[in-house]
Amino acid sequence: MGGEQVRVMRPFKRLTSREEALAVISANIRRIERVERIPIEAAAGRVLAEDISADLNVPPFNRAAMDGYAVRAVDTYGATTYNPKRLRLIGRQNAGEWFEGEVNQEECLEVATGSPIPRGCDAVVPIEYTGMEGEYVEVRRPVHPGANISPEGEDIRKGETVMRRGETLTPGKVGALAALGREWVEVFSKPTVAVIPTGSEVRPPGSPLGRGQVYDTNSYTLSALISAHGCIPKRFPVVPDEPEAIREALREGLSQDLLVFTGGSSVGTRDLLAEAVEEMGRVLFHGLQVKPGKPTLLGIVEDKPVFGMPGYPTSCLSNAYIFLVPALRKLAGLPTHEPRRVTGRMAERVVATTGREQFLTVKVRDGFVYPAFKESGAITSIAHADGYIIIPINADVIEEGEEVTVTLLE
Amino acid sequence: MGGEQVRVMRPFKRLTSREEALAVISANIRRIERVERIPIEAAAGRVLAEDISADLNVPPFNRAAMDGYAVRAVDTYGATTYNPKRLRLIGRQNAGEWFEGEVNQEECLEVATGSPIPRGCDAVVPIEYTGMEGEYVEVRRPVHPGANISPEGEDIRKGETVMRRGETLTPGKVGALAALGREWVEVFSKPTVAVIPTGSEVRPPGSPLGRGQVYDTNSYTLSALISAHGCIPKRFPVVPDEPEAIREALREGLSQDLLVFTGGSSVGTRDLLAEAVEEMGRVLFHGLQVKPGKPTLLGIVEDKPVFGMPGYPTSCLSNAYIFLVPALRKLAGLPTHEPRRVTGRMAERVVATTGREQFLTVKVRDGFVYPAFKESGAITSIAHADGYIIIPINADVIEEGEEVTVTLLE
Repeated sequence: MGGEQVRVMRPFKRLTSREEALAVISANIRRIERVERIPIEAAAGRVLAEDISADLNVPPFNRAAMDGYAVRAVDTYGATTYNPKRLRLIGRQNAGEWFEGEVNQEECLEVATGSPIPRGCDAVVPIEYTGMEGEYVEVRRPVHPGANISPEGEDIRKGETVMRRGETLTPGKVGALAALGREWVEVFSKPTVAVIPTGSEVRPPGSPLGRGQVYDTNSYTLSALISAHGCIPKRFPVVPDEPEAIREALREGLSQDLLVFTGGSSVGTRDLLAEAVEEMGRVLFHGLQVKPGKPTLLGIVEDKPVFGMPGYPTSCLSNAYIFLVPALRKLAGLPTHEPRRVTGRMAERVVATTGREQFLTVKVRDGFVYPAFKESGAITSIAHADGYIIIPINADVIEEGEEVTVTLLE
Repeated sequence: MGGEQVRVMRPFKRLTSREEALAVISANIRRIERVERIPIEAAAGRVLAEDISADLNVPPFNRAAMDGYAVRAVDTYGATTYNPKRLRLIGRQNAGEWFEGEVNQEECLEVATGSPIPRGCDAVVPIEYTGMEGEYVEVRRPVHPGANISPEGEDIRKGETVMRRGETLTPGKVGALAALGREWVEVFSKPTVAVIPTGSEVRPPGSPLGRGQVYDTNSYTLSALISAHGCIPKRFPVVPDEPEAIREALREGLSQDLLVFTGGSSVGTRDLLAEAVEEMGRVLFHGLQVKPGKPTLLGIVEDKPVFGMPGYPTSCLSNAYIFLVPALRKLAGLPTHEPRRVTGRMAERVVATTGREQFLTVKVRDGFVYPAFKESGAITSIAHADGYIIIPINADVIEEGEEVTVTLLE
């Protein structure tokens, strides 16, 4: 490829299918290996970078699983409502206390859920099956040895590997870390993503617009999606459509784990990103067989994946949901994201463009599916959409009333 | 109710069904009305507190929707590959530039996607349908007036209300804010949630465990879930099982928008939270017809919802997914969360406890559903689960091979 200068507009040589593009992404992007130690309260959603083995038994002692009376099970055998067994109540042990004595034959100790089981006892009679008679507890049902006791180590056994490197921490897994007394945990760092808007007409929100200028939309939509999928967006200033400026931004962006350019990946003479990537690395695909979002590029420069997303807001964002999200999650070590799908009936007839797989943004209301798509350049085509339907390459039309599957934008 | 002192253990008087509990939550918890102004880059996932109306047209000018040549459509009529129309190329206008001249009859101006359409032109001929002949462009297909032009205001019209107060900001909606040039946006504040672990036996992770003590698990699992659903957890120190300590924590917790106690809502003499809530406000329900998680309480004190969650880690967290999440999202103004559901075949026979609706935590592997449940006190019952199945009150057994629906823990 080399430093070929493209002086005239050229169409894409070959369009890559969605499946092929996803396979290229999967094959070429790997989890980053940088790790960090963080407090467990910040760990949900993060990816474990260490195996977690237990330093203690959980629970750390035999404990009451119910409110009631710790007993010797044998003392309850034969108990009925009409012929209860009477056990002398010798005291009470709350959770957090440690009863030093022993419970002897025909005695019992009041315990709360979570209390240690005192010496001599092998079961707990739940409060519901008892009554009080002076200093005696009447037990109305027998319990077997071990009844209503959580034995030491039943939940987690000391030495056991509880979780493994690479698992994503859910609230429940964070709970397991807490149960083991862990305050800190080693996780993979969140990958950083350079978000680089290009376009001499593009201005940052908050600044005045000159003639022929528009506001930068893509770096905001992409950053929101990047944050939602476990990575840290680093927004760069808008880069003008000049070869040296693009090359410079590419070099600077290489300080991050992944780069996403927006705009500047179309086929015009302004198609500068593809040239810069070809010069400094290699292009894996350029041009997708999808609509909207054809002018999408993936390259590798100095081992860093470089995406070139279309400049059009809806093309950019819908392709980001479909192609960038899997890349981000792979980089972060997060499991594949499966957006929810709902079915509905098409509220109106849609004529498809053949030749490319089409992602039609839609709204869903009361089981009916309405096209939300105006045009790829309109941010409202996606801002006002709940999801999209995929119209296959060979389909010409979706009839009113036809059942369709909507993939939610999430 | 008043300040009734409960001196002996008492069973729950009446268990509330899941549906009824969810209806009580929905009827008694309202969105908080506190608002804040934040930069749009932090706005995804937040709830709009203002209507957004457009101060400008988007796009702000007629612009080229494709790379190609701006023309007068009439000059292209009749063009074919073998009989192209020749138009004189008078220059080039990049995006961000503003061509001051006018394009006359049988002339054209090279434009890139996003370029303003010059005076005199009413269409763009895509690059694909042209060729160069010296200073002439050969047009090989006719275009109609308006072709490949995005007219000013097509996306968003000045003065239009683009989004409304109460909408949740998606990446696409953040993009619409950016397209309008907005740097800041007014959103509802994230509700704050006091997370108050109770139990004299409970110690914070990182500190040594004495005899009969266990680590605080629940305040970590709940905080993770609270963060994931748009609220800010404020973890309180562990409160001992003493009436005045509980009352004091309740009073302090009222500084937040919602309070969640864990532990201390069982029916033992240590059932202090219910008493404190009865004294200072009112109990809406106490005792749920679900397993695990029966000892769950909801009350209102000084207009603040107060949850009492079971002390057992799995009971606490599974009830939090089912009952606390809807409460948090209502408080935050977020839409109802619909966790994903998958179906699978039960890998082994499960015998259910009748009398309560049962949430059985499970793992899903290759379409088979395996029980993950050890017991409610075991954090691994939920830490190692992918989701749960609901076993109805009247079901006794799920047979091996039976199809079940798993609600994912998300």
